[in-house]
Amino acid sequence: METKINIEARECGAENDPPTIPKRRQELLKWNGWGYSDSKFIVNKDKHVEFTGERYQLSGHTMPQLRDWMMNTIGINLDHRTPAQPSFTAADTPTPIKNESFIMDMRRTGISLSDDCQDRLFRAHGHTLHEIFVLREGRFDRIPDLVIWPTCHNDVVKIVELACRHNVVIIPFGGGTSVSSALECPANETRMIVSLDTSQMNKILWVDDKNMTAHCEAGIIGQDLERWLAKKGFCTGHEPDSMEFSSLGGWVATRASGMKKNIYGNIEDLIVHIKFVTPLGVMEKNCQVPRISSGPDIHHFMMGSEGILGVVTEVTMKIRPLPECKKYGSIVFPDFESGVKCLREIAKQRCAPASIRLMDNEQFQFGHALKPESGTIFSSFVDGLKKFYITKIKGFDPHTLAVATLLFEGKKQEVAAMEKRVYEIASKFGGLAAGAENGERGYMLTFVIAYLRDLGFDYYIVAESFETSVPWDRCLELCKNVKDRLHRECKERGIQFPPYITCRVTQTYDAGACVYFYFGFNYRGISNPVQVYEDIENCAREEILANGGSISHHHGVGKIRKRYLRQTVGDVGLGTLRAIKEYLDPHNIFGANNCMVGDPEDDRKVHNVPKKAFPQSKL
Amino acid sequence: METKINIEARECGAENDPPTIPKRRQELLKWNGWGYSDSKFIVNKDKHVEFTGERYQLSGHTMPQLRDWMMNTIGINLDHRTPAQPSFTAADTPTPIKNESFIMDMRRTGISLSDDCQDRLFRAHGHTLHEIFVLREGRFDRIPDLVIWPTCHNDVVKIVELACRHNVVIIPFGGGTSVSSALECPANETRMIVSLDTSQMNKILWVDDKNMTAHCEAGIIGQDLERWLAKKGFCTGHEPDSMEFSSLGGWVATRASGMKKNIYGNIEDLIVHIKFVTPLGVMEKNCQVPRISSGPDIHHFMMGSEGILGVVTEVTMKIRPLPECKKYGSIVFPDFESGVKCLREIAKQRCAPASIRLMDNEQFQFGHALKPESGTIFSSFVDGLKKFYITKIKGFDPHTLAVATLLFEGKKQEVAAMEKRVYEIASKFGGLAAGAENGERGYMLTFVIAYLRDLGFDYYIVAESFETSVPWDRCLELCKNVKDRLHRECKERGIQFPPYITCRVTQTYDAGACVYFYFGFNYRGISNPVQVYEDIENCAREEILANGGSISHHHGVGKIRKRYLRQTVGDVGLGTLRAIKEYLDPHNIFGANNCMVGDPEDDRKVHNVPKKAFPQSKL
Repeated sequence: METKINIEARECGAENDPPTIPKRRQELLKWNGWGYSDSKFIVNKDKHVEFTGERYQLSGHTMPQLRDWMMNTIGINLDHRTPAQPSFTAADTPTPIKNESFIMDMRRTGISLSDDCQDRLFRAHGHTLHEIFVLREGRFDRIPDLVIWPTCHNDVVKIVELACRHNVVIIPFGGGTSVSSALECPANETRMIVSLDTSQMNKILWVDDKNMTAHCEAGIIGQDLERWLAKKGFCTGHEPDSMEFSSLGGWVATRASGMKKNIYGNIEDLIVHIKFVTPLGVMEKNCQVPRISSGPDIHHFMMGSEGILGVVTEVTMKIRPLPECKKYGSIVFPDFESGVKCLREIAKQRCAPASIRLMDNEQFQFGHALKPESGTIFSSFVDGLKKFYITKIKGFDPHTLAVATLLFEGKKQEVAAMEKRVYEIASKFGGLAAGAENGERGYMLTFVIAYLRDLGFDYYIVAESFETSVPWDRCLELCKNVKDRLHRECKERGIQFPPYITCRVTQTYDAGACVYFYFGFNYRGISNPVQVYEDIENCAREEILANGGSISHHHGVGKIRKRYLRQTVGDVGLGTLRAIKEYLDPHNIFGANNCMVGDPEDDRKVHNVPKKAFPQSKL
Repeated sequence: METKINIEARECGAENDPPTIPKRRQELLKWNGWGYSDSKFIVNKDKHVEFTGERYQLSGHTMPQLRDWMMNTIGINLDHRTPAQPSFTAADTPTPIKNESFIMDMRRTGISLSDDCQDRLFRAHGHTLHEIFVLREGRFDRIPDLVIWPTCHNDVVKIVELACRHNVVIIPFGGGTSVSSALECPANETRMIVSLDTSQMNKILWVDDKNMTAHCEAGIIGQDLERWLAKKGFCTGHEPDSMEFSSLGGWVATRASGMKKNIYGNIEDLIVHIKFVTPLGVMEKNCQVPRISSGPDIHHFMMGSEGILGVVTEVTMKIRPLPECKKYGSIVFPDFESGVKCLREIAKQRCAPASIRLMDNEQFQFGHALKPESGTIFSSFVDGLKKFYITKIKGFDPHTLAVATLLFEGKKQEVAAMEKRVYEIASKFGGLAAGAENGERGYMLTFVIAYLRDLGFDYYIVAESFETSVPWDRCLELCKNVKDRLHRECKERGIQFPPYITCRVTQTYDAGACVYFYFGFNYRGISNPVQVYEDIENCAREEILANGGSISHHHGVGKIRKRYLRQTVGDVGLGTLRAIKEYLDPHNIFGANNCMVGDPEDDRKVHNVPKKAFPQSKL
């Protein structure tokens, strides 16, 4: 009988290559912004924008065009700053609510826990605009009272049992990258709230090269999972933009999508088995089969559960051999519409590469502004001879052109054949192959974009991304109408400087696409910028829904989109979701109140940024 | 704004090309066996087996080797017959239970209905061994009391409302091809039972060539759907073996799988939108997007609902252009194990054709026995020179060799490249390309196999198919252990002639496969053959589960596999499924009692074949 453990678990794990994010997150990550503390955009003494640190391709470089782009596009004035408040102290943190009998029983288990205010604060939030603003300018009225770090499935079972026994709320915490306010503690929760941090349940338990699966603990982080599997020549290929920080459990809970889903699939395609701890016990199938007909698929209760039905503890995922060849590419289109039509045709012919994304002109200009000083790492897109070539010879207008970035994976001949086919189709839509560097740069930028927002926060900018899925025939119009709506709403609310609005077709499917928007504006003169921002984003979501788009392609519902859930799934759908919640968790132990739980009206009150009592210093 | 109706619905529909199966099914279909009345295997005056009618490639042909094969393999003796009883009359049918107020309200709606005993009987069953035996030798204690034919979604809404109001049971009826006893009426049901026959809601409502989708009524039958779409150059590509008779609604309700899922996907991959009528109202999403993150996916409450949560009324499915090229193929392997290893490697390289299936030696011999008299339609596999070539030159033993049948689809060059790759891999496992005709024959046989069982029923044979999904590393052992277990169980139960047991790997996935078994035996000397059969099949299922297989890959749970559901999805999973049932249908209006509903012990009593009061004549 063949054993599952064909590759020793420890060889795949932490021995000489520990998980990247430490247990004490504050040792490595920013407390009030995105990502690593050592990596940020700053304005240097020459008044140019620089990206600090050593982790990214862009690190250590200055971007000579970025400052001007920020000034011209979004009205940043380097003399007008809105710096963040100094770090929180214990005095700024709500006193923890203590359920003494729970704490006593927890201590007996020996499972690591902490009521340190920094540990609690770090797990009190995700990365919506609102949450980061609270960190920068306000104060959370409610944060977890205790952080607990299980190290295995059985620890989680114990924690959940105790929470049920003592009526303590559990909010599971994976990578903390939620952008739906899913992690925010309900303001009115009077019971003790525990942040169940899965980061120490982070192992690949076994790799099965006979079935091409890997069984992993749910706290494993994307970058660690891929790095450890790569040592054995494997990958899951699941690469969400958040993969440096997000967890397997979080992907399951939110129905995550990865950049290369065209090859590897989205999370529902990658999953073979899920272990899920609920107040009623462990939910799991008894088999590891690729496909089953056993009534409604129970994996689909766990996927999308958004932390309010239970905790994912272990997952069997499909793995693939590392691709032999990996090649970037890019295509310039005369305009966004041509690009969309081309992507649609590529989808129809089912010949899309691992990844294909189309950015609009605004995003192309933005990417151009992010070029570093040194010309050797990236060849310029429109400098010198190339600019002449593209704009004169081919007639592309740099103010309307759009760019698709591509990633091909596979065997050498496969990749060559795919490239040929894709570029042939592109040419039918006026597209011109524009080289690998532009493609690679496009993907690289996705990982640093989140850092740039933090810089914007220092200069009166609020910004956010939001996304949707939409049928092909509504795609172009949705992009246009949402942009128009955003412009109108900004104007009506007295936003002084034109907003920055851009979109990208970021995934293609047989029947439609995923569209990603970035939206930001300068809020000088606006007293409640976060509320204004949210009102406008809600208008954008209504415009999306009116144009055939969905509530979300992959970010999920959380709290910020609860108000759209009823119309999305209907009364009967919503009632059924609530019936599942009522059955699995009648006492609302998993009390983050996301998705179908609670009244959307309650959450509107959460979205005020309470100001601190003491004044902020502005330089 | 582009309209969805890019192709006029009537052009896709019934005007010059009506649905194949008439409203009065008895006009075309057998009342006590599979398929069309005009198509059956008979023993002709020359004591050879013939297939009657004109519908199939095999029709009108004699199979000169089949009789001997039946005699040698499964002990059929043409002198020992077990013919079916004559047709049922009203006297053999239970008196309908009438809920007068319901009937009165129903008549007011103008929706077509019937309490004719033939109409009722036709919808009282599916095609499990047990159900057909009852038709042939016994009597149903409980059948639907009324048949109702809605013609559109709104009709269904009315019917469900009235059923709820008057506490009448609804059992939806699509194509009637259930093989899980899902259609059987619970024997103890004292309320009136309505068979809600969807066959008259059978239209393609619109085809959207911009999004490559088609919106269809759930009663549409597979062969009609594909034929109508083909007129416009499209297909869904969903081709379950039952497609001549099974319905779209049934595919959704059972989580159906199609032969060509490698290209087109299984039902969960094909669905864009489902409309589902429950006692609480209509469940449906408000968008037609390819992918969504809105909490647990409500489509997965509808898929696998097995007729006990509501009725599927309309479905948006993905469509594809008809393939340019369609080519069959076959590979001979020295043995089954080599074939499994080859299929596993093809799956790993993700280069499987539209369909690839591996049959064991027994099934190959069976296929050989089904050769028709005329040699011009099919070239023989092992006759003449070829037999010499294969058995002498290549060393294949005709008693151990296994055969894979293949179907390639795509553009000409794509198909050529795929063939090359597949045959190259096959050669590494000792496989030899054996031509298109053997492949085509293999697929053709799948459609007539169900007819052959009816012939067996006339000669003391009971037989059934059952299937499972299994991880790759357990696949071979599962096949062996299940066969061994079947042999042992037959011997212990005094079955006189060795049983016929064969298996086929019928689908491949990244992480495993679908395996299909045929199992039959001669029951001379056995007084309760159906009970014995079922006991043995349950042993086989236990053996399957013990070897890492699942409860079912695509047939579903119905009633016959209820007893395995708890161990499949666990207590918490089962409880959640029941909570959904309790919420959507607290009064069990959709009272077929399949899957998670009711106690498996109740259903053991259903599986006795009640004998008719009057004696049967045996020739």
